Amino acid sequence: MRIPAYIKTSVEEWLEGFKFSGEIKVRFSETDGFGHLNNTNAFVYFEEVRTDFFKHLGFMQKWTSLEYEAMIVVADLQCDYIKQVHFDERLTVSVKVNDIGRSSLDLHYVALNAQNDICLIGRGTVVQINKETGLSLAWDDDFKMLFKQA
Amino acid sequence: MRIPAYIKTSVEEWLEGFKFSGEIKVRFSETDGFGHLNNTNAFVYFEEVRTDFFKHLGFMQKWTSLEYEAMIVVADLQCDYIKQVHFDERLTVSVKVNDIGRSSLDLHYVALNAQNDICLIGRGTVVQINKETGLSLAWDDDFKMLFKQA
Amino acid sequence: MRIPAYIKTSVEEWLEGFKFSGEIKVRFSETDGFGHLNNTNAFVYFEEVRTDFFKHLGFMQKWTSLEYEAMIVVADLQCDYIKQVHFDERLTVSVKVNDIGRSSLDLHYVALNAQNDICLIGRGTVVQINKETGLSLAWDDDFKMLFKQA
Amino acid sequence: MRIPAYIKTSVEEWLEGFKFSGEIKVRFSETDGFGHLNNTNAFVYFEEVRTDFFKHLGFMQKWTSLEYEAMIVVADLQCDYIKQVHFDERLTVSVKVNDIGRSSLDLHYVALNAQNDICLIGRGTVVQINKETGLSLAWDDDFKMLFKQA
Repeated sequence: MRIPAYIKTSVEEWLEGFKFSGEIKVRFSETDGFGHLNNTNAFVYFEEVRTDFFKHLGFMQKWTSLEYEAMIVVADLQCDYIKQVHFDERLTVSVKVNDIGRSSLDLHYVALNAQNDICLIGRGTVVQINKETGLSLAWDDDFKMLFKQA
Repeated sequence: MRIPAYIKTSVEEWLEGFKFSGEIKVRFSETDGFGHLNNTNAFVYFEEVRTDFFKHLGFMQKWTSLEYEAMIVVADLQCDYIKQVHFDERLTVSVKVNDIGRSSLDLHYVALNAQNDICLIGRGTVVQINKETGLSLAWDDDFKMLFKQA
Repeated sequence: MRIPAYIKTSVEEWLEGFKFSGEIKVRFSETDGFGHLNNTNAFVYFEEVRTDFFKHLGFMQKWTSLEYEAMIVVADLQCDYIKQVHFDERLTVSVKVNDIGRSSLDLHYVALNAQNDICLIGRGTVVQINKETGLSLAWDDDFKMLFKQA
Repeated sequence: MRIPAYIKTSVEEWLEGFKFSGEIKVRFSETDGFGHLNNTNAFVYFEEVRTDFFKHLGFMQKWTSLEYEAMIVVADLQCDYIKQVHFDERLTVSVKVNDIGRSSLDLHYVALNAQNDICLIGRGTVVQINKETGLSLAWDDDFKMLFKQA
């Protein structure tokens, strides 16, 4: 298995760091003419577990509220496709905070199939921005604490 | 060819009524494991031509503006799949106003392939609603005039 | 609540006929700029419960196998949008056989939110076809029996 | 503007290397509840220009043919979101071959808006594999020549 450069430890150690997961079933509409999961849907799955994670921490509710000053944007995303995924497979998709910046988070992702094979590995940065100005907005200390414990 | 019950004239006459069209190229990510266009994407194509149509009439800009009191919602939609569509096909998707209600429009849709075969036939109602109350909002007379001429 | 014409009984009686359901959580990527579920995704949800239903009956496995002579295509689909749906809502989406044709099935759909409000009502015909010829293929008697009991 | 690490020259020089482009109009169904293009659709746009590019070179037709021994899979993908994109914007999405491996290609992507601002930057590896064995399949010399000239 080729290991992406952003995994700095052994894969086993890296996998152990994930505490938050969601279950996903591959839809027929998510496959393509090659008969397997279309590559674009890996990022749909990453977004689903990311929004669940933020909701679990109490953030997603704030960001989607009209009154709240801040929202979150994706700054970059990447995925390594390790093993083909097919219609109706059950994936366990996990997310963890790899690094906390001033106003950003570096998140890591992994999707395992029912046999516990790694199918997808990913990472990406999200940034908190001010809705009016579009400028980055530093995390409160409370937020940072939550992310550290997550 | 089976003709949907909401086409009340000959198909030829019905086709002649369409004046507004857009070109669509079928994406690989829009096909599915059966190797053809996944059925759900017919409604993506209908929405694309519908929003272009409303933009052409000057409405879409209003509805997507935060300040504007009204927005538009889809009340119902249907599609008859007449001929299979495959990756990379070019479709001409057309929309027309079939009927104008107090606050609603009954729109008809058709998608033809490069050989001018009918692939998709559709219809659906959209309703103008007030963003605050969610209640239907009657069309201005100016709007009705525009819809009649469209 | 407006009742679609294809519901021939009371809504209560119609709802009681559904025995097969799946749970769906609305993804952020399934919302649109109006802040609610984009209309096109209703059909994604209907397809998910339909393929689960066919898999439950033992059909989906046959149709997606390369060796099997038949596959299933969607002949028509429709949806009535009864109540707005938002990000992160849990929907219970159900499907039932309304009518069995020679080679076709008329399926009915309903999606309820967590408060048991009807959000989406739908129907549509699927047809079994021969993969080589593309012509419709009559159901075996065994299949018909299964559909009647479903 | 933050420049991804895989751009090894000046951005100006990097941009000049793109010769193949496609035009994309952002669909309403591709926006999300934050009112802008949902991040997952960047990869839909990359796939559209990639399949057009391969079709232009004469490959896509081979890979989607049932008889052909090889197909292509995405090994990894990444995107940097430089500037927000909204409904109805026109993007020019370009692709180029950055590097040619034994059986793989490293492709770079860029999406510019109507004001020629860079909105999306991406890269990713595709690999040619044997359909039966799933193993990587080296490019013919003719293929390599085509990729070099593309």
